[in-house]
Amino acid sequence: MDYKQILTTIEDEVQPYIGEGKVADYIPALGKISPAKFGMALHDIDGTVFQTGESSIPFSIQSISKLFTLTMAFQIEGDALWDRLGREPSGNAFNSLIQLEHENGIPRNPFINAGALVLADVIVSNSSDPKRAILEFVRKLCGNVKVEYDPVVARSEREWGDRNSALAHFLKSFGNLRNSVDAVLDTYVHHCALSMSCTDLSRAFRYLAHGGYNPNSGERLMSESQTKRINALMLTCGVYDAAGDFAYRVGLPGKSGVGGGIVAIMPGTWSTAVWSPALNDQGNSLVGTLALELLTTKTGVSIF
Amino acid sequence: MDYKQILTTIEDEVQPYIGEGKVADYIPALGKISPAKFGMALHDIDGTVFQTGESSIPFSIQSISKLFTLTMAFQIEGDALWDRLGREPSGNAFNSLIQLEHENGIPRNPFINAGALVLADVIVSNSSDPKRAILEFVRKLCGNVKVEYDPVVARSEREWGDRNSALAHFLKSFGNLRNSVDAVLDTYVHHCALSMSCTDLSRAFRYLAHGGYNPNSGERLMSESQTKRINALMLTCGVYDAAGDFAYRVGLPGKSGVGGGIVAIMPGTWSTAVWSPALNDQGNSLVGTLALELLTTKTGVSIF
Amino acid sequence: MDYKQILTTIEDEVQPYIGEGKVADYIPALGKISPAKFGMALHDIDGTVFQTGESSIPFSIQSISKLFTLTMAFQIEGDALWDRLGREPSGNAFNSLIQLEHENGIPRNPFINAGALVLADVIVSNSSDPKRAILEFVRKLCGNVKVEYDPVVARSEREWGDRNSALAHFLKSFGNLRNSVDAVLDTYVHHCALSMSCTDLSRAFRYLAHGGYNPNSGERLMSESQTKRINALMLTCGVYDAAGDFAYRVGLPGKSGVGGGIVAIMPGTWSTAVWSPALNDQGNSLVGTLALELLTTKTGVSIF
Amino acid sequence: MDYKQILTTIEDEVQPYIGEGKVADYIPALGKISPAKFGMALHDIDGTVFQTGESSIPFSIQSISKLFTLTMAFQIEGDALWDRLGREPSGNAFNSLIQLEHENGIPRNPFINAGALVLADVIVSNSSDPKRAILEFVRKLCGNVKVEYDPVVARSEREWGDRNSALAHFLKSFGNLRNSVDAVLDTYVHHCALSMSCTDLSRAFRYLAHGGYNPNSGERLMSESQTKRINALMLTCGVYDAAGDFAYRVGLPGKSGVGGGIVAIMPGTWSTAVWSPALNDQGNSLVGTLALELLTTKTGVSIF
Repeated sequence: MDYKQILTTIEDEVQPYIGEGKVADYIPALGKISPAKFGMALHDIDGTVFQTGESSIPFSIQSISKLFTLTMAFQIEGDALWDRLGREPSGNAFNSLIQLEHENGIPRNPFINAGALVLADVIVSNSSDPKRAILEFVRKLCGNVKVEYDPVVARSEREWGDRNSALAHFLKSFGNLRNSVDAVLDTYVHHCALSMSCTDLSRAFRYLAHGGYNPNSGERLMSESQTKRINALMLTCGVYDAAGDFAYRVGLPGKSGVGGGIVAIMPGTWSTAVWSPALNDQGNSLVGTLALELLTTKTGVSIF
Repeated sequence: MDYKQILTTIEDEVQPYIGEGKVADYIPALGKISPAKFGMALHDIDGTVFQTGESSIPFSIQSISKLFTLTMAFQIEGDALWDRLGREPSGNAFNSLIQLEHENGIPRNPFINAGALVLADVIVSNSSDPKRAILEFVRKLCGNVKVEYDPVVARSEREWGDRNSALAHFLKSFGNLRNSVDAVLDTYVHHCALSMSCTDLSRAFRYLAHGGYNPNSGERLMSESQTKRINALMLTCGVYDAAGDFAYRVGLPGKSGVGGGIVAIMPGTWSTAVWSPALNDQGNSLVGTLALELLTTKTGVSIF
Repeated sequence: MDYKQILTTIEDEVQPYIGEGKVADYIPALGKISPAKFGMALHDIDGTVFQTGESSIPFSIQSISKLFTLTMAFQIEGDALWDRLGREPSGNAFNSLIQLEHENGIPRNPFINAGALVLADVIVSNSSDPKRAILEFVRKLCGNVKVEYDPVVARSEREWGDRNSALAHFLKSFGNLRNSVDAVLDTYVHHCALSMSCTDLSRAFRYLAHGGYNPNSGERLMSESQTKRINALMLTCGVYDAAGDFAYRVGLPGKSGVGGGIVAIMPGTWSTAVWSPALNDQGNSLVGTLALELLTTKTGVSIF
Repeated sequence: MDYKQILTTIEDEVQPYIGEGKVADYIPALGKISPAKFGMALHDIDGTVFQTGESSIPFSIQSISKLFTLTMAFQIEGDALWDRLGREPSGNAFNSLIQLEHENGIPRNPFINAGALVLADVIVSNSSDPKRAILEFVRKLCGNVKVEYDPVVARSEREWGDRNSALAHFLKSFGNLRNSVDAVLDTYVHHCALSMSCTDLSRAFRYLAHGGYNPNSGERLMSESQTKRINALMLTCGVYDAAGDFAYRVGLPGKSGVGGGIVAIMPGTWSTAVWSPALNDQGNSLVGTLALELLTTKTGVSIF
């Protein structure tokens, strides 16, 4: 399939929608970005990369990083991870405390903020330098040693992060945080502040399209069965409370971030990443979601 | 792939679990069934059927019928259907009124009871004899003219159906029911009381594995794109509030009923139906879920 | 104290506020009333009545009637009534189904709609002609044999009462309704449709200011202790989800109705009733609440 | 009335119930107390004090202290306080985050933990040494310069206070905390850790029975109208989510703490305090509630 041509066409077709939606501004460091940006990259099963637009510009990957920490925590804990985390869609906003209270401190799934704090806690428990551990993991996956944390974003996130502090203390009050709130939040705000490009992300997540094997590093990260399960989690929980709508329109496992990035996986076929900063009402990239919808429509391929 | 052998092995492997779980008893007519039953059928893409156990015994399909009424209502309304219905997982029990109140009478998705009442309402608006229309639609799909409503189950459902009456009046109070509560409930309890076998169901839902084309009748029911969307809805919302767990363990679009049946689709490859009456805590067939998990494990095939 | 003078002054002082707020229009029969109405009556401990404005014009007492049915049901069941009803403020809208679901069909208190349906159910169980029984009870209390149900309001309430039908079926699904939904709703919509004037109401509720003794009929309705308890329930639950605000501003046990009436009790001193149809955001008479606040301010008397 | 005799009789009659209920153990420092304790003190309008049992033993007053901080914050802010706080019963547990989320960071009332954190924030904004300011205020009210914070309880509360930290950060995320979370929590855990006896408390709260005038200090704390309003708030919100039950059984404005103390006010007549550490299911002193119920029954006096 001529992916290059398809990506170029998609870029053309989304132009009229650029400017719709709203850039995340809950932290000042994110609010400054121009909404008039678009980039997309796709790695096919042979390792060929196809790109269009600003696919090499690093942006704040935010919640997409939870996919990295989920993989790390899953490697550490295996299925024991699910004693501390659910696997169901939340049906509520990503930073809600309500379900957490009703469900006694077990976050509904690993991708809501509370769940990702538990993932960070697992990694903190398992590493003397968790921030370095995450950075090395990510660099190896994407083969780019220049990937860095954006310190301005991390600091901004921490300063404005009372909601996350509330979540962390709340988890701790239920005994579902083993390390200090400070240590966990420090790790969390850093991995959310990773700066990566569409190309970096698309390459990094090839293992999810390859049954757990990472063609970049030549390593197996997890079993084929575990990989399918991560993909299943992405589909049901990866795009906040828009899982049903995203599955309906795009039909792929995907993970979004409020920085405007979305990664999506077509198992056995390709991994892709798209970026456009303005968000729709559910907090996912408006143009990014549209681009992925066009991708499955034009290729005629989705998991359904 | 030797599906016959796989089904036989599955039947062997689930034996130790038969007897676990609990048969639905919220209506007397369902509570009388023996839990020691197991049947499974699979139609591959060529139309060959593979069967094991009590695959030809009709049982009460209950909520699986919502897949039929969703297809009919989608044919009638197209995307306008989504003005009256959401497409998101509910995160709550299937018969909850809570979300309905918070969300002003728009059911979260078509598969919770409130959503299915809206589907029934669409069909009632569109037909002078909605019960006959549904029956004919189902018979044609599975090619079995002997499929019938079980009048004892329908009556029992109606008598014990105060929760559904509450839902229907509640929907009507929000203006999201166009016909009388009585007419809608009568249609609803009847389609839930359809008696069908695993073989009937597996054959009936071949169109969901064939991109909307029904090999039995030679008809196209909906476009390929629409079919993918129904499959996506099944994956995110088809098994009550266990969507995440089911996707994680089974990895297929599926729709369950409290009668103990589950249908599942591997797009482009096969449709299957399994039946075992005892339910797990989420209200899905305990052994049926296990059998489907074994099916995707043994075939190495899932949508992820 | 010169109550006549005080009532006249109050009538003057509320004039600028007449026209604020909004007449209830959820049923057509109520929506037709002019908002520019005001009446007030007060019976002191000696039985003298003081009146101002349209105090003799009958209006639809709506939820105020729940005070009559609570008294009847309490006479019938005594403290056993509290097995089927809570005594706590709801913290939610009067017709909410949410708490009812969380709390398994036990309404939070007797004054929310669900609670009043249970009261009606108690009366239906105890009388061959519950509507007549209520009417006779009320007529005797106020000494006015002309008090009647307004059939237009009752019918309108029934026709537009899908929310109440939903509540009734919901209660029945939890086993907390013993009679048919129809019988209970018929009783409920009738007692809500009682037409009474401020003078009628003020006289009828003298027993709550007299420790359970009704000076009109010369009968004791309940013990002094029971009477205090009814007054306590009014204070914590009598004005929908504005109990705290009403206690803060008015400082009296009160019961309001969406018809714009409010009754209030100063134990041992007087009973009063006020009427003005336009409601504030919490569903209580805007001018009526203000008039009662002026009454406790001007007399310097409240229960606190 | 022979209050001395009445208190003695109450002490006798509650004996069989001592040992029922459960001492609060959410912080270790509280869990160590013996449940077999009972004390009660009552100050009549003339200033005479009546006592029984361990009425002079200091205990941890916990949430009763919120009545002191409410009075201070009300003096500082007047009615502007209600821009940051509601006045309605919560209908939920005292430390719930749920309503706070639904209601955008405005605590339902000043007595739930979130509300008391806002009170503490007001005092922190208004004082260079808020802990000293509170201590001096309390000592002056009860005329006992030996009243102190219990540093062990304060530290224990802080160490185990992740739920309160969560609440504080949550309030801050909504902009309803002006000072640092640390400063507010430090003030909060200290005032909750005040050690006072029944006699201290009964004397301190005489101003609520005297229309705002404190006979100890000879000062007016607030107007008569404001005092009535504080009493009204106590009645509707003072005993966690048992307001309705407490009003029904006791019929007095009261404020309880998890240390087992309860203060109650009969306006114009007396103030009282009772202490017994074991709590009922709603978190109020089991024997203390019973003693107050006996007090209103035996004196025949309540506000209703």
